[in-house]
Amino acid sequence: MISLTRMNKILEIDEENLTVTVEPGVLLMDLAEAVEEKGLFYAPDPGEKTATIGGNVMTNAGGMRAVKYGVTRDYVLGMEVVLPDGEIIEVSGKVAKSSSGYSLKDLLIGSEGTLGIVSILVLKLLPLPRKTMSLLVPFSTLEGCIDAVPALFRAKLLPTAVEFMERAVIEASEEYLGKPFPDKSADAYLLLTFDGNTTEEVERTSDDAAELLLDLGAIDVLIADTEERLEMIWTARGAFLEAIKSSTPQMDECDVVVPLNKVGEFVKYVDQLASGNQVRIETFGHAGDGNVHVYVCKDSMPDSRWEETKDLVMQAMYDKAIEFRGQVSGEHGIGHAKKGYLAESIGDRGMRLSAAIKRAFDPKNILNPGKVCN
Amino acid sequence: MISLTRMNKILEIDEENLTVTVEPGVLLMDLAEAVEEKGLFYAPDPGEKTATIGGNVMTNAGGMRAVKYGVTRDYVLGMEVVLPDGEIIEVSGKVAKSSSGYSLKDLLIGSEGTLGIVSILVLKLLPLPRKTMSLLVPFSTLEGCIDAVPALFRAKLLPTAVEFMERAVIEASEEYLGKPFPDKSADAYLLLTFDGNTTEEVERTSDDAAELLLDLGAIDVLIADTEERLEMIWTARGAFLEAIKSSTPQMDECDVVVPLNKVGEFVKYVDQLASGNQVRIETFGHAGDGNVHVYVCKDSMPDSRWEETKDLVMQAMYDKAIEFRGQVSGEHGIGHAKKGYLAESIGDRGMRLSAAIKRAFDPKNILNPGKVCN
Repeated sequence: MISLTRMNKILEIDEENLTVTVEPGVLLMDLAEAVEEKGLFYAPDPGEKTATIGGNVMTNAGGMRAVKYGVTRDYVLGMEVVLPDGEIIEVSGKVAKSSSGYSLKDLLIGSEGTLGIVSILVLKLLPLPRKTMSLLVPFSTLEGCIDAVPALFRAKLLPTAVEFMERAVIEASEEYLGKPFPDKSADAYLLLTFDGNTTEEVERTSDDAAELLLDLGAIDVLIADTEERLEMIWTARGAFLEAIKSSTPQMDECDVVVPLNKVGEFVKYVDQLASGNQVRIETFGHAGDGNVHVYVCKDSMPDSRWEETKDLVMQAMYDKAIEFRGQVSGEHGIGHAKKGYLAESIGDRGMRLSAAIKRAFDPKNILNPGKVCN
Repeated sequence: MISLTRMNKILEIDEENLTVTVEPGVLLMDLAEAVEEKGLFYAPDPGEKTATIGGNVMTNAGGMRAVKYGVTRDYVLGMEVVLPDGEIIEVSGKVAKSSSGYSLKDLLIGSEGTLGIVSILVLKLLPLPRKTMSLLVPFSTLEGCIDAVPALFRAKLLPTAVEFMERAVIEASEEYLGKPFPDKSADAYLLLTFDGNTTEEVERTSDDAAELLLDLGAIDVLIADTEERLEMIWTARGAFLEAIKSSTPQMDECDVVVPLNKVGEFVKYVDQLASGNQVRIETFGHAGDGNVHVYVCKDSMPDSRWEETKDLVMQAMYDKAIEFRGQVSGEHGIGHAKKGYLAESIGDRGMRLSAAIKRAFDPKNILNPGKVCN
């Protein structure tokens, strides 16, 4: 039964099955807090903590911890869904495995509200890791930064998260938050997190990673292992998007995902686009999972040139992502704006199959019409 | 391009992106060996090591390590698929995240060859855990065994695998393999595995688990931390199915999945069915993920009574699984035999949606007709 409330209740935290059952309006930050109080962990960690979990599921939100823990999809066990004609169905449930026909659940995840409206979610939890440590690693160039990441993977040092960032974005964030960042001596930084259940384990992996990064040209390795220091760095990281937004009257964004050893080449290409088209483009993102956030900023550019420049730059970036056999969006989704790019990426047949699936669920096209593939 | 070979080549192990690209005919055991040589780990661990990876993906095979690592679905990044009309499409690719339209990839996973034929797979790898330890834990009753599992989860001691087994099955396996099992003093056993990157970490978790299990009534805790001892136990475990098969002229099986704290009640219900219907039923399975393997054995029962008894017992088990809000199959899939049970589980609407999806991919119904939902 669906109640006519805001649907933001946490219905059950099940400590025997390690699950939480929620209404879709629960905010990500409230979900995290509620389960952490019980020593449990909802692993996906998208930057926007005031997003609803329903929205997260409907875009298959990614987040910072995807390197080690995967994305939202990996944590959705079951859901109750209202179909376009009002019939309510349950798809999968509080079970850890299923090989029981087509996964309607996985089709609904990431469908951006075009196939059904989720009314209840059963999510998988993990035991909360006992120890977390972050390393802030300055490099003299962004290239050096990003090129170090595949070496970490080759060395089997799997971090929870690896973010890359440049000084310009850090400074925008400082200004936006009115709070200082712990280091600004370098042009570019890697921010890594390691977690685990024993201090020795986490320290050993962090030490090995620090040594490797210094060998690869890192200027220094700054350790953040206190609550306060972690908060300082990650709050800044969480504010990057808002900080960039507030620095320009208009912008356009993309969040393509490429194989992680192509991130360096991709970012270099974006820099060339910026200088070649005389437009400011800020880039930051998830070096460890290949998901790059790119913000094309209008600044004082005249409107007519802006429209043209923006379209040209965006098309060039999506073309490059396809060349690298990447995907259109790593976490934000398709909506209306990226439908053309999706069609270029998955081709006619992919679009036709998607449209046929849409018709199977929503023949009258009443749910979020005009989005994704229809 | 598809070559007319057995399609059993490992095409690439990518140590920077932590992926392996394979043709679908590669055997699970060959895949495991090839990546382990490079210090990498393909986490899903279905019991049947001579299965092909293509078959594993098409049934979304589960396996022993699902407790900690999830199932096959969680490790498929992308695939090349031949559609029923011969068009070849790529779905997703060598990327860690995607929010780029409906997940055709996830629809194909577990579709049992009814939507398309996979020709290339890109799979996710992890660094190989440096240390693995198993605990063989005798209990005086199966009930005691299974009831201890939710307590482990409440205590946040997350094993890689938790299996339960009874003496009868162990003895059948000894006879089948001609090899002794390390302990047969008790009626029932839990078999747990813990893995990690440091000996201290794995030993600490195993010690905590051992202490808790002794508190909960375990008779003893036998530690297996040598290659030889691990091999001895897990080989026996791997032979259970074949051992039971060879003990009876005919049998029927089910692999329902229920919430893990319902496994105990489910197994007790199966025991009642066995005694109430005077039929031998052997049960073993994945106590840590709720996936129960049940084998109804004909033995010397007359054919006429066997058909009736088997149908009655199977229906009762599926009804009970639905009552517990479980799913029809945890890893074996639906095929032809379980279509009726799937319909009871997901309902008319679920079946109609599935059939419409099938038509969208395969309007002429030429791929594996009569299976899953058509």
